Amino acid sequence: MSLLVVGSIAFDSVKTPFGEVEEVLGGSATYFSTSASYFTEVAVVAVVGSDFPEKYLRFLKSRRIDIDGIERSEGKTFRWKGEYGYDLNEAHTLDTQLNVFQSFRPKIPEKYKDKKVVFLANIDPDLQRDVLHQVNDPVLVACDTMNYWIEGKRDSLLETLKLVDILIINDSEARELAKEPNLVRAAKKILSYGPNTLVVKRGEYGAIMFRDDRIFAAPAYPLESVFDPTGAGDCFAGGFVGYLANTMNFEESNLRKAIIFGSVMASYNVEAFSLERIKSLDYSEIEERYREFKRLTHFEDLT
Amino acid sequence: MSLLVVGSIAFDSVKTPFGEVEEVLGGSATYFSTSASYFTEVAVVAVVGSDFPEKYLRFLKSRRIDIDGIERSEGKTFRWKGEYGYDLNEAHTLDTQLNVFQSFRPKIPEKYKDKKVVFLANIDPDLQRDVLHQVNDPVLVACDTMNYWIEGKRDSLLETLKLVDILIINDSEARELAKEPNLVRAAKKILSYGPNTLVVKRGEYGAIMFRDDRIFAAPAYPLESVFDPTGAGDCFAGGFVGYLANTMNFEESNLRKAIIFGSVMASYNVEAFSLERIKSLDYSEIEERYREFKRLTHFEDLT
Repeated sequence: MSLLVVGSIAFDSVKTPFGEVEEVLGGSATYFSTSASYFTEVAVVAVVGSDFPEKYLRFLKSRRIDIDGIERSEGKTFRWKGEYGYDLNEAHTLDTQLNVFQSFRPKIPEKYKDKKVVFLANIDPDLQRDVLHQVNDPVLVACDTMNYWIEGKRDSLLETLKLVDILIINDSEARELAKEPNLVRAAKKILSYGPNTLVVKRGEYGAIMFRDDRIFAAPAYPLESVFDPTGAGDCFAGGFVGYLANTMNFEESNLRKAIIFGSVMASYNVEAFSLERIKSLDYSEIEERYREFKRLTHFEDLT
Repeated sequence: MSLLVVGSIAFDSVKTPFGEVEEVLGGSATYFSTSASYFTEVAVVAVVGSDFPEKYLRFLKSRRIDIDGIERSEGKTFRWKGEYGYDLNEAHTLDTQLNVFQSFRPKIPEKYKDKKVVFLANIDPDLQRDVLHQVNDPVLVACDTMNYWIEGKRDSLLETLKLVDILIINDSEARELAKEPNLVRAAKKILSYGPNTLVVKRGEYGAIMFRDDRIFAAPAYPLESVFDPTGAGDCFAGGFVGYLANTMNFEESNLRKAIIFGSVMASYNVEAFSLERIKSLDYSEIEERYREFKRLTHFEDLT
């Protein structure tokens, strides 16, 4: 089964303690679709400006990503500039230029309307709902959001959440959305807003999934060199949702496997700037790291 | 096999967002030995003042803890006062009165000198070494320390670490000890100082163990109500070292089980102030939570 993602394509300028890059390929839809492309066919709806080079579109195509839904508008592509300190869990945004993304109104091409799995990356919750009104009958809807929308468009976001199966956000977003500092209680509240599954991303501490009263905790892969965390959350979501779209099995045990695949993709992504590491993985590398997650977490049952 | 712990006994005054207690039983040796007592016999070397009530000694004895090494000095018992915000990972110390602990020089009773497992709680590294000079031939030495000694007595601490098998510290201590922000690199450096095993406690994110190139990551048990994190690290160490002292099996797979038992004890401890929750557990409750850790972390192998 194939997967539809609606999100951003951007040029990122990023500084970390380990180096600096200027205007490299980024954006939630880019990271998500590249990561998901290792598991399933992906179709992207996004917008780029007239300055967006063909070579990047060719790259996405080379990953068998359907880019017919990428609209080209007059003007400049979305730009983001950020910096990370030694605490790589938190980005400090230095500059955001929305450019053509400012007036982005996702138009879902006719041929995408029957996609069974939809991922709504972090965009205005009004637009997220607008996308859902354009698609016919998805089996699984997953979405991301951020503090900006939680604070500024709470009511709209709550409307969107009523239509969502899986919400994938980070620690502080979960606490803020639920207005509750304890994560377990926050998760219960969020699940009452609509989603049947909440996945909380915790950066170097991994991810934790809540469904009814079942909880699954996965660590992050311990790395000696984390060069750039930009896009890690979207790569996580891409591996997670991509694996689910490929298997179309939404049972607990398969969701857990999907969390590990998401964690694998995030761990590869942070090993280099932009998409340098994840643009050309072997599937065997993905499987090998999955097995390493098993070795990392396994302990014996009580006898 | 039985276990020797050298550490502090204190009166704690603690404020958390969920309540407040005044001068309740605390201290590293108290938490450690109570937790370890569910797994093995424990002997304690510590000091209390003339104000220390008999009932607390009777409590420790009721847990089959050997208290003959607890010295009673003229003066007041060590007092600590601290506060936690909603971020329960970090204590803010409001007041420390060392009192009789100021001049504590551990004297290991003759009958303890052949103990095979020794835990050096967080005390002056000079004293930690002094303890090791008094015991005969321990098979396993584990120890804790804190930023105060890492900053103030680094050379002495490094001398102690040469004599230690397992170092059990928290995230920020590991980074500071190694002067290295990346935890995997920090661990490698610390293992080069002497210990063959490093266990890093990460509060609500669990624990991670490093040995040669093997890493084991365990989450913390997700709790809806964390009342008071005081003593969680010592309860973790008590369960971890207590289980190892009971089994005397130091293979990787058994160390991993020990990490889970430590995590179980820490998770019970934070459910109430002081030792209220861990003072009277059933062993079946410990085993049940161990099984819950398995359910919390299990995912399928690749087929």
